Amino acid sequence: MTVDAHRTNTGRPLTARGRETRARIVNAAAELMLDTGVAGTTMEDVRARAGVSSSQIYHYFADKDALVHAVIAHQDETIVGAHEAMFAELDSIDGLRRWCAWIVEYQRLGGCSGGCPLGSLGVQVAEIDPDARAGVAQALSRWERAIRRGYESMRTGGVLRGDVDTESLARSTLASLQGGLLMAQIHRDTAPLEAALDAVVAHARLLAR
Amino acid sequence: MTVDAHRTNTGRPLTARGRETRARIVNAAAELMLDTGVAGTTMEDVRARAGVSSSQIYHYFADKDALVHAVIAHQDETIVGAHEAMFAELDSIDGLRRWCAWIVEYQRLGGCSGGCPLGSLGVQVAEIDPDARAGVAQALSRWERAIRRGYESMRTGGVLRGDVDTESLARSTLASLQGGLLMAQIHRDTAPLEAALDAVVAHARLLAR
Repeated sequence: MTVDAHRTNTGRPLTARGRETRARIVNAAAELMLDTGVAGTTMEDVRARAGVSSSQIYHYFADKDALVHAVIAHQDETIVGAHEAMFAELDSIDGLRRWCAWIVEYQRLGGCSGGCPLGSLGVQVAEIDPDARAGVAQALSRWERAIRRGYESMRTGGVLRGDVDTESLARSTLASLQGGLLMAQIHRDTAPLEAALDAVVAHARLLAR
Repeated sequence: MTVDAHRTNTGRPLTARGRETRARIVNAAAELMLDTGVAGTTMEDVRARAGVSSSQIYHYFADKDALVHAVIAHQDETIVGAHEAMFAELDSIDGLRRWCAWIVEYQRLGGCSGGCPLGSLGVQVAEIDPDARAGVAQALSRWERAIRRGYESMRTGGVLRGDVDTESLARSTLASLQGGLLMAQIHRDTAPLEAALDAVVAHARLLAR
């Protein structure tokens, strides 16, 4: 999946204003796909929400698939980017607990609607668009590496035991998060997400020095 | 969401043969929705796979939504039913490990395609069909109760400590499973599922007497 935020759908470079319009369209698409799912979102919905003309939206995106790819790249940047920043500063079990509390609060504010902007998108496209699936897989791997780096600094800093397998721990942490978000989305309730993340913190505590 | 496997779409009772035809249609729909997603499945695809006529399929299901509801009820019966049976016999950490191994093997055989037949379906319908979402939520709750009963017998049998919160543990176990299945589906690789379930077993071991 190649997405270039600096070019039109035919590969022409964008002006600053063009990039701004394109970003507005991608934001509108991201919001709509979270609110009504990928299947429930049409090009026309996105066009209306972004406040652009039909010819404008097709100037940037050949079709809905291209828009889905751009939304995945956007969520990779914003969601995974935010988590990367948080995990870069992780140095304690308390820090891990704050990360969990932040996620739960974010979901509570949104009424647990939409699920994970990346994981949920991944499930919706996995069996119909191999390129989009690969794009989400790449973003999830980046997310996992960010979590792993956090656990590694906790291990280096003597918070976690020296024999902790940070790769497995990061992978299972992301799985707990994804499963918790999925269940919260389906139940419209943060309780399963809280239980999933409490278990992540409890497990880390049991692996602490 | 009310689904009655013993009636036509207009509420008329089915004969034994009618129930058999209806079950064939639901099975075909379940397979297709797993293979190509809900959005990628049409009534015509289901009709062809089940080998029935157009008038037959519409005799049982008014529209695709009705079919989705029937598939959710079907997955509830088969998937959650199977897990209920397994957890009813759970009495050791080894038994928990065998459950995990069984799930991983099942996903490996299917090439990690489709994800969880219930969780993945839930994500695909959550924002477009509140009744379907509620149906999946109900099935997930039943699944969680089955896991909890397993942990409760482990606690009663002295395998888990007496102070273990089986409700939270069951909830976080299902979240790990759902997240692991989601990541396996997106990565087309059982590794994240294995890490998620290894963490479930490792955590239970740390909570053992």
